[in-house]
Amino acid sequence: MSFYPSSLEKVIHEFSKYPGIGKKSAEKLAFYVLKSDEHHIEDFCKSLLELKEKTRFCEKCFNITEEKICSICKDHQRNQKELCVVEQFKDLISIEKTLEYKGLYHVLMGHLSPLDGIGPNQLKMPELFQRIENEDIEEVILATNPNVEGDATALYIAEKLKNTNIKVTRIARGLPVGGDLEFADTLTLSKSMAKRELLNID
Amino acid sequence: MSFYPSSLEKVIHEFSKYPGIGKKSAEKLAFYVLKSDEHHIEDFCKSLLELKEKTRFCEKCFNITEEKICSICKDHQRNQKELCVVEQFKDLISIEKTLEYKGLYHVLMGHLSPLDGIGPNQLKMPELFQRIENEDIEEVILATNPNVEGDATALYIAEKLKNTNIKVTRIARGLPVGGDLEFADTLTLSKSMAKRELLNID
Repeated sequence: MSFYPSSLEKVIHEFSKYPGIGKKSAEKLAFYVLKSDEHHIEDFCKSLLELKEKTRFCEKCFNITEEKICSICKDHQRNQKELCVVEQFKDLISIEKTLEYKGLYHVLMGHLSPLDGIGPNQLKMPELFQRIENEDIEEVILATNPNVEGDATALYIAEKLKNTNIKVTRIARGLPVGGDLEFADTLTLSKSMAKRELLNID
Repeated sequence: MSFYPSSLEKVIHEFSKYPGIGKKSAEKLAFYVLKSDEHHIEDFCKSLLELKEKTRFCEKCFNITEEKICSICKDHQRNQKELCVVEQFKDLISIEKTLEYKGLYHVLMGHLSPLDGIGPNQLKMPELFQRIENEDIEEVILATNPNVEGDATALYIAEKLKNTNIKVTRIARGLPVGGDLEFADTLTLSKSMAKRELLNID
């Protein structure tokens, strides 16, 4: 049973498709649209459509960009010998936010998932190996997710690069900084114990 | 410092204007737009603009509607002698959702707030008194919010109707059903004590 005029009902329905937006939040957002002036909503729509129109994938690393080649690939200050492989654009952003990594990226646009019919050729794997062949890469950092699919994807790449003299590394697993031992899951904790580091006190 | 192409940055900024949407959620929503196909986003925008275009206020009660007169005012099954006064459209919806009230409504579109320059004429008060004069209303239920502004607004209306033979009632204050005495604020609790009802056990 609906208490709303149909156009309002439709907007609530549309908003509730967004991730993390339940019925209640969708109502709140729709009420906001209802109260906003028309120009504001027109601007909002324009910005959404512009986003769809202008953005595309970097032809080199598949980062999201408004140009042919993204700003990271074009930045010659960055270390051209380090290549960090991630599953998706959001992961690249997370690593950029650390402000620590100064090399290049390659976005796979997913992970290997044979059951869903996603093999290397459904990902940007051929492009990755092409880049490794053509560019002067010294280290490939595998920053796919630390879960089953991400591990399998990382392993596949490592396997392919076994007989080259490229250094292949995997991001470290362990306890999150600021985390509590008490709340760590057993898998993380056992990884963290196995990979324990020597504490050097001089 | 921004890690996003400017069109993406703009959409994140637009989403973060919505109520209850912080920076993180805005990013999530923008990523969703980025991943959705263009037709889906076009549909979404169309529904927003249609909402702004089609909806207007009922000429009688100021409910939101797509026609001149809203479906509640047009429904002759409803009790035409009861008039429930609320501050805003959302309050009307809340009461409708109880499925209990079967009378008419009048939306004031705000509450009295002299400091902000909002007097009776800035609200739909003149229209309210006009309706009471012209229609055959027997009871006016004041369902403005149970706070200082809502109370003042209710008092103002009650005062105006003092010398008529219209029954004027105010929604009850008390402990929320299913609530805990322990967590009730003192004001609500003292109201709830003062307005205690006789328990008749036959």
